[in-house]
Amino acid sequence: MGPGPVDVDPRVLRAMSMPLLGQFDPHFTAYMNETMGLYRQVFRTENRATLLVDGSARAGIEAVLASALAPGDKVLVPVFGRFGHLLAEIAARCRAEVVTIETQWGTVFPPEIIETAVRAHRPMLLALVHGDTSTTMAQPLEDIGQICRELGVVLYVDATATIAGMALETDAWSLDAVSCGLQKCLSGPPGCAPVTVNERVEVLVRRRRHVERGLVGPEDEESGAGPVIQSNYLDLGMLIDYWSERRLNHHTEATSMLYAARECARIMLEEGHEPRQSRHRLAGRALAAGLGALELRVFGDPAYRMPNVTGVYIPEGVPGEAVRAALLEDFGIEIGTSFGPLHGRIWRIGTMGYGCTRVNVLSCLAALGTTLRRFGHRASPHEAVAAARAIYEGG
Amino acid sequence: MGPGPVDVDPRVLRAMSMPLLGQFDPHFTAYMNETMGLYRQVFRTENRATLLVDGSARAGIEAVLASALAPGDKVLVPVFGRFGHLLAEIAARCRAEVVTIETQWGTVFPPEIIETAVRAHRPMLLALVHGDTSTTMAQPLEDIGQICRELGVVLYVDATATIAGMALETDAWSLDAVSCGLQKCLSGPPGCAPVTVNERVEVLVRRRRHVERGLVGPEDEESGAGPVIQSNYLDLGMLIDYWSERRLNHHTEATSMLYAARECARIMLEEGHEPRQSRHRLAGRALAAGLGALELRVFGDPAYRMPNVTGVYIPEGVPGEAVRAALLEDFGIEIGTSFGPLHGRIWRIGTMGYGCTRVNVLSCLAALGTTLRRFGHRASPHEAVAAARAIYEGG
Repeated sequence: MGPGPVDVDPRVLRAMSMPLLGQFDPHFTAYMNETMGLYRQVFRTENRATLLVDGSARAGIEAVLASALAPGDKVLVPVFGRFGHLLAEIAARCRAEVVTIETQWGTVFPPEIIETAVRAHRPMLLALVHGDTSTTMAQPLEDIGQICRELGVVLYVDATATIAGMALETDAWSLDAVSCGLQKCLSGPPGCAPVTVNERVEVLVRRRRHVERGLVGPEDEESGAGPVIQSNYLDLGMLIDYWSERRLNHHTEATSMLYAARECARIMLEEGHEPRQSRHRLAGRALAAGLGALELRVFGDPAYRMPNVTGVYIPEGVPGEAVRAALLEDFGIEIGTSFGPLHGRIWRIGTMGYGCTRVNVLSCLAALGTTLRRFGHRASPHEAVAAARAIYEGG
Repeated sequence: MGPGPVDVDPRVLRAMSMPLLGQFDPHFTAYMNETMGLYRQVFRTENRATLLVDGSARAGIEAVLASALAPGDKVLVPVFGRFGHLLAEIAARCRAEVVTIETQWGTVFPPEIIETAVRAHRPMLLALVHGDTSTTMAQPLEDIGQICRELGVVLYVDATATIAGMALETDAWSLDAVSCGLQKCLSGPPGCAPVTVNERVEVLVRRRRHVERGLVGPEDEESGAGPVIQSNYLDLGMLIDYWSERRLNHHTEATSMLYAARECARIMLEEGHEPRQSRHRLAGRALAAGLGALELRVFGDPAYRMPNVTGVYIPEGVPGEAVRAALLEDFGIEIGTSFGPLHGRIWRIGTMGYGCTRVNVLSCLAALGTTLRRFGHRASPHEAVAAARAIYEGG
């Protein structure tokens, strides 16, 4: 019950143990096409360029930023947690001109603050984290896409921590590029990053198109006029060519991870977007109620808390790491530590995907409550469980 | 029986279906350490920095080149097939000054040619493919390391297609950096790149060390004086910090792929280096004998052919793609097409790892022989099988 990676759905584990197919076997390319279709539904988009990057979530981030941003392009990154810093740092490595605005960890940006910054800095691209697990906050996105369209700015969103746990509407919210990972609410293994980009981003990428020597023929195909993308592995143009019907060879697709990604999407879509989101909301509310009954203070602005990861202050005098170790040793429950300014101050408890269940929420509260008693914090485990149960029973 | 990815060992498939552990769970970090130790044995090295890059083989190549080469550094790439072009292209994207020498596809470089080029160009780094599946040739490496040491050049080798199929002696041959993949003779899934670098390369990388903001504390640790590595995801310095006892958070390790990589190495080491190499040599000889009996001409300089992938000319008048399709449809056997100058001229048949068996070699010859008959090529399938069987029976 950490902030991810989380327990994988057994159906996904089983999918990964399927025998491999050759990468150009028609059965496998059919799986690739099917997976693109499934992720269009997951991302709620019609984008043709919807594919998997073979690497962890940050590989997906880097594929988008390195492919969209040419050296010298200006990018604005509103930072409200660790992963905002990550977007800024990846963009800087692409030699973009990076402008950041920051807000305190535990808060998010009102849309008008972002709009003011966009108007002031006139970036080519705005890069935003949707939900930042480091602070448990989710940035509202509904209005940002429209602001960007009006001002001619490309909008990229890192939805790693929110996809399949909270609403994420790629097309309806006018998000130009979105990337994520499997290892949070999709309940898959880390190491695969679904990405979707629209025609606006495809145009940017096509300008920088490049075909490897020795691949097509003595006379290679024409390349785009723009500067070559600095990564070969994360070159979205090449990835799009590979996932297109031309199947221009690039890397060898990570077969087993594709099986996993496909199964994650199937499970998610069988449950449905709204039922899945409401399951996460309920768990987040129940957990917070239980933590409150344990006389613990939940971290961050309650209006913008993610339902699938909850930060909670470590009470005065309680050794945070010893509690985490005891939970793992005595109950087999892992909860998260935290980064940067919150290090040693809060724990983070995930309720994600397959692990987002009533059983897990109640078990975690019972285990945490009894463990806190052992370390001298006087609050009742049974009251915590009762408070959470009350939420589940319609409270 | 293509040139990779190949059939995965069922033990590896089973390993991938194990439940996930949290990335900082002591059981998981113990697996990480164990896997480093196993790959030291696979690579035949004492290098501390022996780890997995979460991406396909080319992600491993790019991690080494992007981390070792700073902009303006000179790199020499002897190109004897498609993957030499790939090394040159990745190095160019790192803004290195790239010098290539080329030899005809189907041949390799005599060491003295490489030595002359190194003396002429004085590169900072020499990048070499060990076995290039595009041409089925393996470059002898025994003497190259010494040449590089004498001339103060860093030697990087891409051993994706040879590791666990041919001898590869990282330390004995003085290779400074080696990367590979699981999907050839290690019989694992694509999407994971074991990498090893020695202290010489670690020094280069440490100079460019960089710690992400928001990770450690308000005052980040000091960074190296060198230019920041242009990729965050493939920053070897960060990867080394993550795989070290400090476990400085970077990406989330691809748990299931690590299970796979660990099992691949265990299987390989149980069999032993020499028995495994001799199994591949025998299969390569048997396959070539059978192809000869089918009156087919094997591609490339026989002195330097890889035992685990065999190129064979498509006979005059035979439709190469129709034969490949028939093999897949009628016998469930996939053989490879080829790239660039060899496209449409040769097929490539893999005998790799778990798939490198007498049963596969004989079945492939029988299937290919009967299919060729159907397409008008007059040669005897039973003679092909007999010729290969004779090799297996001590011929």
